[in-house]
Amino acid sequence: VSALPQAMPGALPAVSVAPVSIAVLGVGRIGRLHAQLLCHRLPGASVACVYDSHAPVAAAVGDELGVPVAASVEAVLADPAVEAVAICSSTDTHAALIGAAARAGKAIFCEKPIALDLAAVDAAVSAVETAGVACQIGFNRRFDPAHRSVRAAVAAGTVGEPHVVRITSRDPAPPPLDYVRVSGGLFLDMTIHDFDMARFVVGSEVVEVTAHGAVRIAPDYASVGDVDTAVITLLHENGCLTSIDNSRQAVYGYDQRVEVLGSKGMAASTNPPAHSGVVQTAAGSRGPALPFFFLDRYVPSYLHEWSAFLAAVRGAGPVEVGVRDGRAPLVIGLAAWRSLRERRTVRIEEIA
Amino acid sequence: VSALPQAMPGALPAVSVAPVSIAVLGVGRIGRLHAQLLCHRLPGASVACVYDSHAPVAAAVGDELGVPVAASVEAVLADPAVEAVAICSSTDTHAALIGAAARAGKAIFCEKPIALDLAAVDAAVSAVETAGVACQIGFNRRFDPAHRSVRAAVAAGTVGEPHVVRITSRDPAPPPLDYVRVSGGLFLDMTIHDFDMARFVVGSEVVEVTAHGAVRIAPDYASVGDVDTAVITLLHENGCLTSIDNSRQAVYGYDQRVEVLGSKGMAASTNPPAHSGVVQTAAGSRGPALPFFFLDRYVPSYLHEWSAFLAAVRGAGPVEVGVRDGRAPLVIGLAAWRSLRERRTVRIEEIA
Amino acid sequence: VSALPQAMPGALPAVSVAPVSIAVLGVGRIGRLHAQLLCHRLPGASVACVYDSHAPVAAAVGDELGVPVAASVEAVLADPAVEAVAICSSTDTHAALIGAAARAGKAIFCEKPIALDLAAVDAAVSAVETAGVACQIGFNRRFDPAHRSVRAAVAAGTVGEPHVVRITSRDPAPPPLDYVRVSGGLFLDMTIHDFDMARFVVGSEVVEVTAHGAVRIAPDYASVGDVDTAVITLLHENGCLTSIDNSRQAVYGYDQRVEVLGSKGMAASTNPPAHSGVVQTAAGSRGPALPFFFLDRYVPSYLHEWSAFLAAVRGAGPVEVGVRDGRAPLVIGLAAWRSLRERRTVRIEEIA
Amino acid sequence: VSALPQAMPGALPAVSVAPVSIAVLGVGRIGRLHAQLLCHRLPGASVACVYDSHAPVAAAVGDELGVPVAASVEAVLADPAVEAVAICSSTDTHAALIGAAARAGKAIFCEKPIALDLAAVDAAVSAVETAGVACQIGFNRRFDPAHRSVRAAVAAGTVGEPHVVRITSRDPAPPPLDYVRVSGGLFLDMTIHDFDMARFVVGSEVVEVTAHGAVRIAPDYASVGDVDTAVITLLHENGCLTSIDNSRQAVYGYDQRVEVLGSKGMAASTNPPAHSGVVQTAAGSRGPALPFFFLDRYVPSYLHEWSAFLAAVRGAGPVEVGVRDGRAPLVIGLAAWRSLRERRTVRIEEIA
Repeated sequence: VSALPQAMPGALPAVSVAPVSIAVLGVGRIGRLHAQLLCHRLPGASVACVYDSHAPVAAAVGDELGVPVAASVEAVLADPAVEAVAICSSTDTHAALIGAAARAGKAIFCEKPIALDLAAVDAAVSAVETAGVACQIGFNRRFDPAHRSVRAAVAAGTVGEPHVVRITSRDPAPPPLDYVRVSGGLFLDMTIHDFDMARFVVGSEVVEVTAHGAVRIAPDYASVGDVDTAVITLLHENGCLTSIDNSRQAVYGYDQRVEVLGSKGMAASTNPPAHSGVVQTAAGSRGPALPFFFLDRYVPSYLHEWSAFLAAVRGAGPVEVGVRDGRAPLVIGLAAWRSLRERRTVRIEEIA
Repeated sequence: VSALPQAMPGALPAVSVAPVSIAVLGVGRIGRLHAQLLCHRLPGASVACVYDSHAPVAAAVGDELGVPVAASVEAVLADPAVEAVAICSSTDTHAALIGAAARAGKAIFCEKPIALDLAAVDAAVSAVETAGVACQIGFNRRFDPAHRSVRAAVAAGTVGEPHVVRITSRDPAPPPLDYVRVSGGLFLDMTIHDFDMARFVVGSEVVEVTAHGAVRIAPDYASVGDVDTAVITLLHENGCLTSIDNSRQAVYGYDQRVEVLGSKGMAASTNPPAHSGVVQTAAGSRGPALPFFFLDRYVPSYLHEWSAFLAAVRGAGPVEVGVRDGRAPLVIGLAAWRSLRERRTVRIEEIA
Repeated sequence: VSALPQAMPGALPAVSVAPVSIAVLGVGRIGRLHAQLLCHRLPGASVACVYDSHAPVAAAVGDELGVPVAASVEAVLADPAVEAVAICSSTDTHAALIGAAARAGKAIFCEKPIALDLAAVDAAVSAVETAGVACQIGFNRRFDPAHRSVRAAVAAGTVGEPHVVRITSRDPAPPPLDYVRVSGGLFLDMTIHDFDMARFVVGSEVVEVTAHGAVRIAPDYASVGDVDTAVITLLHENGCLTSIDNSRQAVYGYDQRVEVLGSKGMAASTNPPAHSGVVQTAAGSRGPALPFFFLDRYVPSYLHEWSAFLAAVRGAGPVEVGVRDGRAPLVIGLAAWRSLRERRTVRIEEIA
Repeated sequence: VSALPQAMPGALPAVSVAPVSIAVLGVGRIGRLHAQLLCHRLPGASVACVYDSHAPVAAAVGDELGVPVAASVEAVLADPAVEAVAICSSTDTHAALIGAAARAGKAIFCEKPIALDLAAVDAAVSAVETAGVACQIGFNRRFDPAHRSVRAAVAAGTVGEPHVVRITSRDPAPPPLDYVRVSGGLFLDMTIHDFDMARFVVGSEVVEVTAHGAVRIAPDYASVGDVDTAVITLLHENGCLTSIDNSRQAVYGYDQRVEVLGSKGMAASTNPPAHSGVVQTAAGSRGPALPFFFLDRYVPSYLHEWSAFLAAVRGAGPVEVGVRDGRAPLVIGLAAWRSLRERRTVRIEEIA
């Protein structure tokens, strides 16, 4: 180590304010990850306890991280030492937990989506706004440094007025049918990130949706009315056109790109390859595939989203992705499903 | 989170063997980092205790990580529960600690360099080989995925017989004179990584060194006989020529590139930019700078080097960078200093 | 010049067969370019004569290239020494000239589009097929090496079954209203290249078109019913979805990209920058803009399309872009206009 | 063709001054290329005649281009209609032809190198300076847009004071022994371009040379005392260190890169790949090789060098690469040979 830096990213800097005490509700895959990050990578946070409806899961994570296991959600919400909850349980529990946590006066971080139906979402929005608590929805991609640089270029006026947005969003492999069945389907599970991204980078609401989709990869998806491949066109209030393409199977890796063409230029984010090594021979050049796993791309975005949340809870910044930002992409997703099924362009006001 | 992966990089997988119990000796900058990684990112390891000759430093890190603070090196080495030591103290203590740890039968991880003089290194080598313990030297760059892909291409024969190697290795900013004074100077502090890299990627020992250097950035370096800018040419036993260039000041970021030209092709590693966002306007394209901080590039290499060490301690793999790999680049560095001062090519056998 | 190659691209190789004698009809901008290329860069061709309805234009080009000026189209077609005609006059003359040339037994190269209405195109198709002459339409982008590599990857099965195609096609600056007025509008003038590209790379006919468009750049386009910005979705017979985005104003240069996602991978063409120089400073990296001029990108494609034509005329290869390949994208373009105006998805069979 | 540009690169623009009338002396490979470019691609030039000591070669090129064949060099130089000569004959004739042309008052373009011995070069320099004619040496790489952007960044101060230069210069395949025998060897035939490039981008004379080289590719080169692989270190008057690596065999293509590290940043030129297509699959990404042929990279540089020459002859600009710029790299090359043979650093003043 030849350089002598004064600070170590990823290490624990001195913290001048007390860490935010957070209860993690639901410690399956994503909840356990958040609990790990909060314990070890985010000095401004501490994990007050974990809870999971499957007790052995909670016990294992509690043991792994050396944190208490809560007996019930009620116990968590009744504990005055808990300042915030991270809602990482299954989607069908999100809205009710938001409501209960809001009423208990806790700050709330909730994984997307809030719910798959609007009534539940509206109840959650209302509870949050009545309680006046901070509530951040887990659209982590907004915090990816590359995507964020695209938004920054738009916000700074560098690319001028946005005219066309392209979003490519492809998973490496399709999830199993059991997951798909309860997920809300492609538009509410996967494209919902892209609907959020479109709103984020353009800075203007979506007013119209035209969706095309097909089953090309996982034939059994047809049995639950889902698609695995899609092209969606959005019209924004400011006239910008956004084109999104999705696939559940990019065999070359996790492919996430955003591009804004404006009157003064273009800003785009591409995919970092797995590493920067290349080989050149008479047969051409070869490089690594993209990372296949979303965490290889997005762990930094999780750290940044938590930093933003912690700052908001401590009053040091706004809630960057509020509860209404959780509602809007759901509406677009519902419009997309209607568009696909009725084979026509659907206006947002038909849904919302 | 739409994909449903079965494993989470960076998370704690199930471990089938007991973690290796490691005492971290020296928890200044790099030692604290290693202790953090061992605690939180490497499930195959546990930190038995930390020790530092500055007691408050040890206490702070012990507190931060929730691990015991050892009273003395002797206590650490006498503790049968300690399987391995991580030597991260100042360079002048490395060789003696290696000797003591070897005699105590501990596995050893030691930061580079082992020492600045050959006699001390030879004593350490002898102690390790007499004791028959595992001893890995901290040349972490060998574990960087991109540099490693270059070595892999050579080892697999993809690029044929190596003819020319280029190594560019530049720090973003020069360290202070106090550090430089005790560091062994550019060739033993910074280029030593590149000497190791040259041996690693070519797979053949260095037999001849020609060094050119100058003070271009930090005028006060001249007062201690150091240089801040250098171009070094190595001749390997197999005829390969390696050209290394160093600078203490690449204002555009931490620049680390390795390239091997062989009879059948070329393999190269470049620098990942800070993120993948770009902006294109009528004035041209713009992208982010390289990361300025070595950890932004090399944390994955630390994780991989620890994984290799843990496997070696558990008998599941060889020691990839052994104690003699700590000696060879020091010899090349000493030859480089003699070459610079005597303005001539120096053969390795003049030093070793 | 240190290397000693045996052949010089761009130079005149030995030709074993007699050059094809070609009359160039219309020597405005693109016709003059073709005449220059045929004279100087394509050893398999010779320019028999040039003709232009504006006599001074023809005289100037004849003088510049040292070739005869024909008195009339009739004289050209009656000349037995003329083996082929290059139709480069204004669009409204193409179909009639194809018909006359076909009846005269000449091989035909015709710039796109054949015509703006289907009846004229059908007459031209019929004339060519009745006469049995070779007729190649000037969709030069098929011959661009990068786009061609995309098609090659699909044809070889490397990317598997095509699922999603993305085509980005943007001009640096909008043409004047006078040009737009007679051009057929965005979809028949500019997107027609992309419709051809979609058919080419996917290898399957388009069955359905959904177009969105707007006037964002050149307000006066509204007065002639044209748009300057568009997003178009195509459905192919084999189920592939193609998304095209167009803009008349990419201020960062001429932007032409094609990408095919398939079941086994992805193939894509991007834009070569103006040159390969970059600058990196503490402020980030900077590179050149894209070339602003289509010839900077596409001259090689013109040379390749002529080579293919010359081979076809000499019986050494098929006509790669036949007269029916000139009809299909016009139909898609007409469907796109109907889709935009009726705000609905239009099936190709409604037009053709 | 949808855009409507007003000018066509590669086409013949209107010329307001009379073309420079040039006689091409020597129309082997490179001379024929220059004659073709002058005839067809450079409207400011006309080819007055061609001459070659092998009469059939001259006849063939004269026929191909429709230009007269001169009976002798004397006849060319006596012809008042010839304003300039392009000396493209074998190296051993260059110096004498420069002398004769200078005395005849002709402007001179001469391929590199002027000669392989300094006495001949000095005579040529003297003749040119006595006559006061324009004389440009064919170091075409200075006119490559990417390399030129590197020089421009240095000249503009963007990268600050130059500290380290890296030049990678590799041919795809070694020339035959018969060529090598009379070429002056690697340093005078191939590296001479890089010596010129080092002077060009740094803007400071070379004062010291240290050369390492080996025969790794073409064993028979040893019989004529040549090497095929080399690493050379230059010290410039301003303190900059330049590292050059050469190989006669980069099987992946023609590899030409220049990089300047300075106190304020870095500027670099890389290689344009053969085209911009890529394929990504689960096995990684693949792209085309570099072009294997130097003309694929450097034709634009030839056009730019001719434009500069034509401007200089017409008094519209300086001679950018004068006759003394032909002398300096020869001196460096002779120093490199002495360094290699005497295994020591050689100061330029020992040679010049």
